[in-house]
Amino acid sequence: MWTSFKKSMNRLSPVQIIIGYYFLAVSVSTLLLSLPIATKPGIRWTFIDALFTAVSAVSVTGLTVINVVDTFSTPGIFIFMFVLQFGGIGVMTLGTFLWIIMGKRIGLKERQLIMADQNQTQLSGLVKLMIQLIKIIVIIELIGAIVLGLYFLNYFSDWNQAFLHGLFLSVSATTNAGFDITGQSMIPYKDDYFIQFITILLLILGAIGFPVLIEMKEFLSNRARVYKFRFSLFSKITSVTFFGFIIGGALFIYLLEMNEFLKGKPWHESFFYSLFMSSNTRSAGLTTMNVSDFSEPTQLLMSFMMFIGASPSSTGGGIRTTTFAIMILFLWNFAKGSRSIKVFEREICDEDIYKATAVMLMGVILCIVSIFIMTITEDFPLTQIIFEVCSAFGTVGMSFGITPDLSTVGKIIDMTLMFIGRVGIVSFLFIIGRREKTDNYHYPKERIIIG
Amino acid sequence: MWTSFKKSMNRLSPVQIIIGYYFLAVSVSTLLLSLPIATKPGIRWTFIDALFTAVSAVSVTGLTVINVVDTFSTPGIFIFMFVLQFGGIGVMTLGTFLWIIMGKRIGLKERQLIMADQNQTQLSGLVKLMIQLIKIIVIIELIGAIVLGLYFLNYFSDWNQAFLHGLFLSVSATTNAGFDITGQSMIPYKDDYFIQFITILLLILGAIGFPVLIEMKEFLSNRARVYKFRFSLFSKITSVTFFGFIIGGALFIYLLEMNEFLKGKPWHESFFYSLFMSSNTRSAGLTTMNVSDFSEPTQLLMSFMMFIGASPSSTGGGIRTTTFAIMILFLWNFAKGSRSIKVFEREICDEDIYKATAVMLMGVILCIVSIFIMTITEDFPLTQIIFEVCSAFGTVGMSFGITPDLSTVGKIIDMTLMFIGRVGIVSFLFIIGRREKTDNYHYPKERIIIG
Ligand SMILES: [K+]
Ligand SMILES: [K+]
Repeated sequence: MWTSFKKSMNRLSPVQIIIGYYFLAVSVSTLLLSLPIATKPGIRWTFIDALFTAVSAVSVTGLTVINVVDTFSTPGIFIFMFVLQFGGIGVMTLGTFLWIIMGKRIGLKERQLIMADQNQTQLSGLVKLMIQLIKIIVIIELIGAIVLGLYFLNYFSDWNQAFLHGLFLSVSATTNAGFDITGQSMIPYKDDYFIQFITILLLILGAIGFPVLIEMKEFLSNRARVYKFRFSLFSKITSVTFFGFIIGGALFIYLLEMNEFLKGKPWHESFFYSLFMSSNTRSAGLTTMNVSDFSEPTQLLMSFMMFIGASPSSTGGGIRTTTFAIMILFLWNFAKGSRSIKVFEREICDEDIYKATAVMLMGVILCIVSIFIMTITEDFPLTQIIFEVCSAFGTVGMSFGITPDLSTVGKIIDMTLMFIGRVGIVSFLFIIGRREKTDNYHYPKERIIIG
Repeated sequence: MWTSFKKSMNRLSPVQIIIGYYFLAVSVSTLLLSLPIATKPGIRWTFIDALFTAVSAVSVTGLTVINVVDTFSTPGIFIFMFVLQFGGIGVMTLGTFLWIIMGKRIGLKERQLIMADQNQTQLSGLVKLMIQLIKIIVIIELIGAIVLGLYFLNYFSDWNQAFLHGLFLSVSATTNAGFDITGQSMIPYKDDYFIQFITILLLILGAIGFPVLIEMKEFLSNRARVYKFRFSLFSKITSVTFFGFIIGGALFIYLLEMNEFLKGKPWHESFFYSLFMSSNTRSAGLTTMNVSDFSEPTQLLMSFMMFIGASPSSTGGGIRTTTFAIMILFLWNFAKGSRSIKVFEREICDEDIYKATAVMLMGVILCIVSIFIMTITEDFPLTQIIFEVCSAFGTVGMSFGITPDLSTVGKIIDMTLMFIGRVGIVSFLFIIGRREKTDNYHYPKERIIIG
């Protein structure tokens, strides 16, 4: 069975599988969301809006041209939450899965990233792993839903309403989709630190990356120290970068806004505004205030943070934490005149440096070109366009609220960015590049002057 | 003599020599421009303004907080032109010179970049080469001055005035300094295509890079085909990119503005506006119109073009043409799944790909951080700040005219960018990085997930 599976993997490349899955998920979602039962009576939407909503949902971005609560019926909301799983869990597990296979394919002999199953490179092991991943996310979502549902009884007298809100917020936060059924994101809970705290917890679990979750699980189940457990280099790098961005981002937002938006607010309000908004630039995109109330430097800082995005193999997008970390380490080492990047007592492979370079470069080009085109087609200030583009690429979904008013070109750019942000640039590069046979000819090398 | 020179080169690194030269040139220039004889009666300027002018002149940027013609006396203008040579020729020849030495130092066995002198790696050969380089530029400047001076008799009845304007424009264009003594750049000559054509010719000769000039000279003196001449890979890459940007830029400016600024203008006017403005984003920074009259997309396009800048070892700045070319080729090859970059029947060294990556990355970080800080300290629209930052980094010197109104922080950022843009990021990285011994220990390599 493994052999025949491997054969079909060779015919369909892993990247083609991810892309195929994504397009299938978007098509099915567009259909599902267009079902008459999904929408409230009297709602008619255009194809581009239904498509946009499906793309935004499958890419768990949360940019939206409609108001979820005014558009969808209660069954529609359940369908919608189901669709979020396509993107949130689907692309994520598929990504992790394929990463392992590709790791195998390139003949990687080093310790495998995920140690959960010694037989993981066998198909049965991989399927087991995927089921485990899906289980973890669903359990997180359910626990979140119960805690939030119970707590929402403070807001809603109706148990159904309370638990619907609890479930939706939990799913929206864990999948980092960032959609809301309040009609105004998390602004109604801007003074409720408990809800904010739970939301931050859930979105971190979704955006920190699956391998980290699995390793955490193994670490905790090995508390008796049956064997020596070591976190993978990947988990260490991505976690440090991830939390570095949350904490550093919160600090910067506070410093930039303490005499602006946060002026005169008590410390706990300032603290939660900064922390919540910073955490949500990782990928979730929920907000407790209007980003337009922040000053321009903060909006640009948040754009930059959204561009970086979340961990690979997570529910997030952007160029990803590891790409950013490797590039900074590379630059640091280059300035020191050192050749090899040493971090956490390991060395980074040249292969991964090349990959990170390509991802960073492509990400920058993609966003700059998108911003450039939007300045031609859209009539919004540059800062808002930059924010919108970074938000789509990072599958974050924060916005100045300009999304519904974008031209069709603008909406197509948004959708393209959400797609690329979600499947990741490495996969995207493999789509646009024509595969060539390995070259077996060489020219003489010649040095040139750089910079 | 060569041995003792080599010894002193080992004590002072090439980069330290360039930086030392730059600071010396700025100090001397600040002093010279502060001489009472240099300024018109009644002019008193602050230290920061004198320093800013010196930095802008030595880095041949042309951003200015003063009006040259209102500030300097006629002797002052001659001193000023002399200062431009410090930066234009000084940094350039020193750069070329050191590149050859560094090439030697890293044990480069390949065909030397510049074939003019077989003994070039001997001190006498190098000195000969530098003198040759200086000669070439001075001859270009003089021919330009004579042609323009004679032509300016159409504008000025006074021979002194005509030749002063001719000499200044020739020096300003050839060194790509972009300063003017008209008080409003090239706007007075916006309908004079002859002046614009000569100016474009001169600025190209200054910004195309010294090695290209030397090779051109050799190529022309070898027309009898005494031996088989081959242009270096460097010359080919930089020339193609350089002219690609000029032509592509002109085309884009035309397309973006044909229904805006160029609307209703005859084809020859449109042609020259597009071509002149595009050519000047390479490095010279002279303008035949106010950039504020262009639409926002064009302003952003020009910012991008200025960020790229001119050839290495030229009078220009930015990340340089070769960096951009290598990055695009790298991305293209990565997408194709190919390992080695083949271009013009040669292959690019890994070393140079690493360098280009570092330069690109550092350039992006530098400009983003500068823009970010300026949005905090300055009260100008984002587009104007982006334009100003890219203009300083590319040592281009075009501006919305906001330079004199920048805060001191803004002026310091401008000066820093002009400095880094001029000496080049590779040199800059070597300043900020602490040199370490080659590491002779290694950790195991471990793969991580990227993008
Ligand atoms: K999101
Ligand atoms: K200039």
